[in-house]
Amino acid sequence: MSRTVLVFGAGKSTAYLLNYFLEKSSDENLKLIICDIDFTHLDEKIASHDNCSLVKLDIFNDSERSDFIEKASIVVSMLPPKLHIKIAEDCVRFKKHLVTASYINPDIQKLDADVKSAGLVFMNEIGLDPGIDHMSAMQVIDRITDSGGKMLLFESFTGGLVAPDSDTNLWNYKFTWNPRNVVVAGQGGAAKFIQEGSYKYIPYQKLFRRTEFLEIKGHGTFEAYANRDSLKYREAYGLQEALTLYRGTMRRVGFSKAWQMFVMLGMTDDSYTIENSEGMSYREFVNLFLPYSPTDSVELKLRHYLKIDQDDIRWGKLLELNLFDHSKKIPLQNATPAQMLQYILEDSWTLQKHEKDMIVMYHKFGYEINGVKKQIDANMVALGENRTYTAMAKTVGLPVAMAALQILNNNIKTPGVQIPIKSEVYQPILAELEAYGIRFNEFEVPYLGYNPDSIAI
Amino acid sequence: MSRTVLVFGAGKSTAYLLNYFLEKSSDENLKLIICDIDFTHLDEKIASHDNCSLVKLDIFNDSERSDFIEKASIVVSMLPPKLHIKIAEDCVRFKKHLVTASYINPDIQKLDADVKSAGLVFMNEIGLDPGIDHMSAMQVIDRITDSGGKMLLFESFTGGLVAPDSDTNLWNYKFTWNPRNVVVAGQGGAAKFIQEGSYKYIPYQKLFRRTEFLEIKGHGTFEAYANRDSLKYREAYGLQEALTLYRGTMRRVGFSKAWQMFVMLGMTDDSYTIENSEGMSYREFVNLFLPYSPTDSVELKLRHYLKIDQDDIRWGKLLELNLFDHSKKIPLQNATPAQMLQYILEDSWTLQKHEKDMIVMYHKFGYEINGVKKQIDANMVALGENRTYTAMAKTVGLPVAMAALQILNNNIKTPGVQIPIKSEVYQPILAELEAYGIRFNEFEVPYLGYNPDSIAI
Repeated sequence: MSRTVLVFGAGKSTAYLLNYFLEKSSDENLKLIICDIDFTHLDEKIASHDNCSLVKLDIFNDSERSDFIEKASIVVSMLPPKLHIKIAEDCVRFKKHLVTASYINPDIQKLDADVKSAGLVFMNEIGLDPGIDHMSAMQVIDRITDSGGKMLLFESFTGGLVAPDSDTNLWNYKFTWNPRNVVVAGQGGAAKFIQEGSYKYIPYQKLFRRTEFLEIKGHGTFEAYANRDSLKYREAYGLQEALTLYRGTMRRVGFSKAWQMFVMLGMTDDSYTIENSEGMSYREFVNLFLPYSPTDSVELKLRHYLKIDQDDIRWGKLLELNLFDHSKKIPLQNATPAQMLQYILEDSWTLQKHEKDMIVMYHKFGYEINGVKKQIDANMVALGENRTYTAMAKTVGLPVAMAALQILNNNIKTPGVQIPIKSEVYQPILAELEAYGIRFNEFEVPYLGYNPDSIAI
Repeated sequence: MSRTVLVFGAGKSTAYLLNYFLEKSSDENLKLIICDIDFTHLDEKIASHDNCSLVKLDIFNDSERSDFIEKASIVVSMLPPKLHIKIAEDCVRFKKHLVTASYINPDIQKLDADVKSAGLVFMNEIGLDPGIDHMSAMQVIDRITDSGGKMLLFESFTGGLVAPDSDTNLWNYKFTWNPRNVVVAGQGGAAKFIQEGSYKYIPYQKLFRRTEFLEIKGHGTFEAYANRDSLKYREAYGLQEALTLYRGTMRRVGFSKAWQMFVMLGMTDDSYTIENSEGMSYREFVNLFLPYSPTDSVELKLRHYLKIDQDDIRWGKLLELNLFDHSKKIPLQNATPAQMLQYILEDSWTLQKHEKDMIVMYHKFGYEINGVKKQIDANMVALGENRTYTAMAKTVGLPVAMAALQILNNNIKTPGVQIPIKSEVYQPILAELEAYGIRFNEFEVPYLGYNPDSIAI
């Protein structure tokens, strides 16, 4: 008898996920049912596959939804995070395993006791970031710890970027995921991390001016700015004793310094709306954030305000976005500055059909073993094929699909609401990801993080 | 029969207010009752006056509070704004007029119909700012409008500063009011105003870098940064047609540029707490916001981070606050950066017993009359006597007291929940304030605000 994999969500990021199930469908005896209200992003190859059926379903229709969940062998949700809870409750009711790529929220966490007593696996945060970051970090941390090492430092960086051969703008950046997240990144509170045992805080107004550089052999230099909460997985990873904990977002060098212009102008603000936003020109938008002058140009006012010279590369970056164009208009009604900026950026930074994205991940593991301090760096680079088969879709979708199949085949069986930090989970999945070209390169580097003489601050 | 003025609140700002009633008590046949839980800030001269009684009263004790209100002829509340509502409700119940210096909040506004039908006057926002600003602005605006002028521009600035002969630090600033308001000033959203018909927005991260200069003859040059909402009184003042509306806070020149250092470091953040704040040295506090280094000093890291040279006056301003001191400790538990910064600043910026404060207010009125564009500037400077009899207490307290007496004597009688923008209110009070030395100087200046050729942005 065939086994039914029920997937909620057929959005942009699901191509690899769905293909994975279909490729395995004969060998593994799988039937794939995809539920969504909109299948416009779905690849024809997937839609027409013999072992695949599409169901147009409103997630809020309780009886329809629960009918399908009751008949499934395992459930995968790729819907927006806030929609998972209804599916999760049905999964508890009908005793079905559940896999999502989303952060565990308190509603899902509350189901833990029921999930455990029913012997179910609710696997969350098993995409790219969160997901591959958890697994690849824990594989190295467990190895260090199991061989008697003591973790001193953990730094982890991820970036969703444009591939070098599709990199056609001065920002070395295009949107490959939710543009909104990029525009409002870093807002909502100071970034917090630990360096050598000291807490450190960076306010939003300096976040993009305190970057670290990272080199990946064969791929050049990157920069990273701090994520809001670097201490989030301290306990989960067993890093309570580590002196340095830092998580960051990777960009090509120079992006952050240029992004800081938008921050300082106030264009990333999402907390208020501009009354006359609809039909406003890009130029007028810029001028909202500059002093009034009857004579000075918007260009000169901006350069003076931000103290940038005409031959500064940041000036070129602004020009490239047509920021001073009179004729280009923003069609959004009652939009926030952030929404208006997003519109302008999407105008320039949208991936074309043939263009490729790139995922980069970089971990640093500092540790002490037998009185010697050492460091392992590990990094991964994944390239997309085109705008549908992106590296983002691949690195988010494949781990989800692999986890679902492993759970279905009873190889991952520890019950509970969880994230992929157990060896039972990360070993088989990281091994299988290598077959798909998602591979970490590890190398030893001198341990530089430590302060040998405890020189006081 | 004597009339009872019931005042809630005997805090720092009430000296002039209470004295005013006592000085008039014989002529006007007044008995003053002061209710508070703490009278430590009360001047002995006031406490021992024949016509004054002190009542230790908990505002939350409903029966006690309403007993006193029932017997009063008029009620004044100088308590924190959130405590007014219980008093206001009693005032409606027992049909008593009420005067406060606080912003009208929605709870108070809701009482308007009841207040009107009972023929009561609930006068609010009748301190300095809000208060004297409303009155002095409306006096000129009404005069311009009544003589056929059309308002084009209104800008208004207020500052609570230190008097020149008590100005002993590089910041030219001391706390003369609630220090917390100074530390978190400008947070919570972009500043919004209109210049020549265009909306303009300044984010917090640039607020202190977009100052205007203002000159007051005999008192030197001041700067002003924008208040959050310059459009707040647009309708109340009848300025719907004005092309320029701007409200700001005045400081001595150079303050804002130096304050920007705290903003960019993240020290004014009030949204999270520092776990190990208690016992932290000033130096360690500064280092929270700087990158880790085993060798570089906190001093050099800060100078590099903010790009300030050793001979920059801002560097002297930081040194003066003992920011790099190892031995000075912050005693606050689980404090926010803003609370810790406030502690450090209070250490340097607290007014000494003999020291004097200074209030400055500056209005600009641009208008058109008979086809000619004109401008009137008006400013007021008030100096304090010492730490108890401050210019702040005088300019906040006297208008409140004067309004209360005018209402009691039936000279101000238009009922309703209101602010002092009617000539019935501002004429007598501004006239009486002049007798106390609170006087506006008016002068005509060329109208510069207008863009004569409508040169496009």
